[in-house]
Amino acid sequence: MNMFRKTILGIALGSAIAVPAWAGPAAEDVPTAMDAFAAAFNSADGAGVAKLYSEDAALLPPDAKRIDGRAAIQTFWQGAIDGGLSNIAFKSVEIEENGNHAYEVGGFSLDAPGEGGATTTVNGKYIVVWKKNGDGTWQLHRDIWNAGAAK
Amino acid sequence: MNMFRKTILGIALGSAIAVPAWAGPAAEDVPTAMDAFAAAFNSADGAGVAKLYSEDAALLPPDAKRIDGRAAIQTFWQGAIDGGLSNIAFKSVEIEENGNHAYEVGGFSLDAPGEGGATTTVNGKYIVVWKKNGDGTWQLHRDIWNAGAAK
Repeated sequence: MNMFRKTILGIALGSAIAVPAWAGPAAEDVPTAMDAFAAAFNSADGAGVAKLYSEDAALLPPDAKRIDGRAAIQTFWQGAIDGGLSNIAFKSVEIEENGNHAYEVGGFSLDAPGEGGATTTVNGKYIVVWKKNGDGTWQLHRDIWNAGAAK
Repeated sequence: MNMFRKTILGIALGSAIAVPAWAGPAAEDVPTAMDAFAAAFNSADGAGVAKLYSEDAALLPPDAKRIDGRAAIQTFWQGAIDGGLSNIAFKSVEIEENGNHAYEVGGFSLDAPGEGGATTTVNGKYIVVWKKNGDGTWQLHRDIWNAGAAK
C-alpha cells in the first residue's frame, strides 16, 4: 500500500514536471496568464510582462503605431509603468480556442495620472490572439485595445 | 459535342451555385470580403456592410461600449455613414488561418468631417477575428480598431 502510494505520487510528480502549469485549455490558462500579467505590471516588472508574449508578438496600442517583438514590447510596457500607470486588472469575457490559436475578448481597468496630481481610472476593452507555444503554454501573440466598456 | 459542352457547362454552373465565390482559404477570401466592405460602406449601404458579419458578431469600437449582433452592427455602421464618414479603404497586413477561425491584422483610412466643413483623413489599425460559415464563406466575427499606423 505504501509502495502503491509512492508510485502514484511519483507519477503525479512526473506529470507535474513534464507538463508546465499552463499547458492546458486556453479557457483555463488564459485567465491565469492575464493574472500573471497584472501581477508583473503592478510590481513595475516590464520584463515579467514581456515574457508572457510570444517572441514575435505584436502590440497595436491606440494612437500609436504597431510595435513588434518581445524586446520592444518590454520597452513599451516598462515605459507605461514608469509613466505612472498602475493598478491594472483584467477580466476575460470570451475565450475561444481553435488549433494553436485562441482569441480572447476582455476588459481592463487601470489607474493613470490625472490633472493636478489626481489619479483617474481608465476602462477599456481588448482582443488578444493567443498562440500555443511548443511546450503547450499559451502566449499573447497579437494584442489590441481601446477605451470603452467591454460589454 | 454539343451535348458534351452542355454537360460541362451544367457541371460548371452547378459548382458555381453550390460553392460560393469566397469559400476558399482566408488569405484569399478575407481581402475580397474587405473590398466588399469598403464598396458597401462607400455606397452608404449599412446593410451591405452588416451582412459580411456573422449573425453573432461583435464590434468593439473605440470610446464606446461593445456592440453585439448583426442588426446592431448595421445600425452602428449606417450611423457612421450618415454621420459623414466616407471613402474607407482597408489593407490586410497579416492573415493567419486556424481551423474555423482566422485572425487578420490590417490598416484602414477614411475621411471624416473636420472643423469648419473641412474633411480630415483618419488612419487606424484593426484586428478582425474571422469565422468560417457553414457554407465555407468567411465572416467578420469580432472586430476591434483604434487610431495609429498599422506598421
